[in-house]
Amino acid sequence: MVPKKQVKEGTKMSRPNLQIALDHNDLEHALGDVMKVGDVVDIIEVGTILCLQEGQKAIRCIRSMFPDKKLVADTKCADAGGTVASNVAKAGADWMTVICCATIPTMEAAQKEIGELQVELYGNWTFEQAMDWHNIGIRQVIYHQSRDALLSGETWGEKDLSKIKKLIELGFNVSVTGGLNPHTLHLFEGIDVYTFITGRGITAANDPMKAAQNFKDEIIRIWG
Amino acid sequence: MVPKKQVKEGTKMSRPNLQIALDHNDLEHALGDVMKVGDVVDIIEVGTILCLQEGQKAIRCIRSMFPDKKLVADTKCADAGGTVASNVAKAGADWMTVICCATIPTMEAAQKEIGELQVELYGNWTFEQAMDWHNIGIRQVIYHQSRDALLSGETWGEKDLSKIKKLIELGFNVSVTGGLNPHTLHLFEGIDVYTFITGRGITAANDPMKAAQNFKDEIIRIWG
Repeated sequence: MVPKKQVKEGTKMSRPNLQIALDHNDLEHALGDVMKVGDVVDIIEVGTILCLQEGQKAIRCIRSMFPDKKLVADTKCADAGGTVASNVAKAGADWMTVICCATIPTMEAAQKEIGELQVELYGNWTFEQAMDWHNIGIRQVIYHQSRDALLSGETWGEKDLSKIKKLIELGFNVSVTGGLNPHTLHLFEGIDVYTFITGRGITAANDPMKAAQNFKDEIIRIWG
Repeated sequence: MVPKKQVKEGTKMSRPNLQIALDHNDLEHALGDVMKVGDVVDIIEVGTILCLQEGQKAIRCIRSMFPDKKLVADTKCADAGGTVASNVAKAGADWMTVICCATIPTMEAAQKEIGELQVELYGNWTFEQAMDWHNIGIRQVIYHQSRDALLSGETWGEKDLSKIKKLIELGFNVSVTGGLNPHTLHLFEGIDVYTFITGRGITAANDPMKAAQNFKDEIIRIWG
């Protein structure tokens, strides 16, 4: 079941979900953090780094700990979509990510094996491609500030926000990620963001549970 | 040390490497096959599917079994290049793949942490991008027929071969993969291919060692 966003009365805007990205280098630290914040967040993501370090075991452990929580495998799949999707679905993932430069046959093969796909937007994707994804039934995209781009000094701006709005107009549920914290969420005020994804914004905090709650409080303050 | 291609006398053409892609769903089957063909091939690839299923353990086991063989982690990295590269290098990988739609900062971050990067060409990459990769010191690209594209009926053609030649002219070592077998290698005759990569072309054969040797014999027959 897809997490329902809570629609406020008298408006079409709804409350964005909060997603924790577990991008740890090992299972033990990931499990420690997800224990603290798993109940607060709406969606748990087994991040690419964790998938590559620990394999399907990471998905299995977290599914076992949170049997009813929406779980995303951030595989950023580029090929062999059917096999990758089948594997992570068996391990317990509800959704899976594919990279935007994957071919349509790869995305179609993956779609047959898992609940929903999320297309990760990196590099020079186009709105024409986005319409191709929509045409094959994909309804979720993830708009990034690349971690490495953020490290090299880039940040959120009007250029990003207008692309996000256009994707929403095209009919996508748009998740947003990259360098987010409770003080930057207001930048998205008035935009019908589907989900805010954060990793170190929560896990690197002294008190991850409090950090997750601060995110949630700010989302409620802005979107109701 | 990068595997040296063996240059024939009196020609600039050299003998392509043979690379086995271990794209198994579990470690035990991957290790069974690599035991049979590891000594025959020039390069061993821990495939994306295996990385996602078994994590870094797959790289560690194969590095331990073949301490002197060139080892590639096919992470198809799209973000967090520094962390992913550092992790797979620690586990024993010499090279790592990045996806063509990764940003330049991601590729640069990865490059600092591992011997060499290979850019995986999927979707709508451009020669302009290729020159950007070359400008930051990347010298390897992998030209694909996507597994899912092959399944949907596409195959190798003049369109592919001319792109491969152009990449070689730009100064890249070009690896080639997708639906290869000893009977299709002749399609590349006269082209200075760096490496032929095959997975099921070897691992799905009744006798994988013989299949690997057949590939090698055909490479020697054509390229000398």
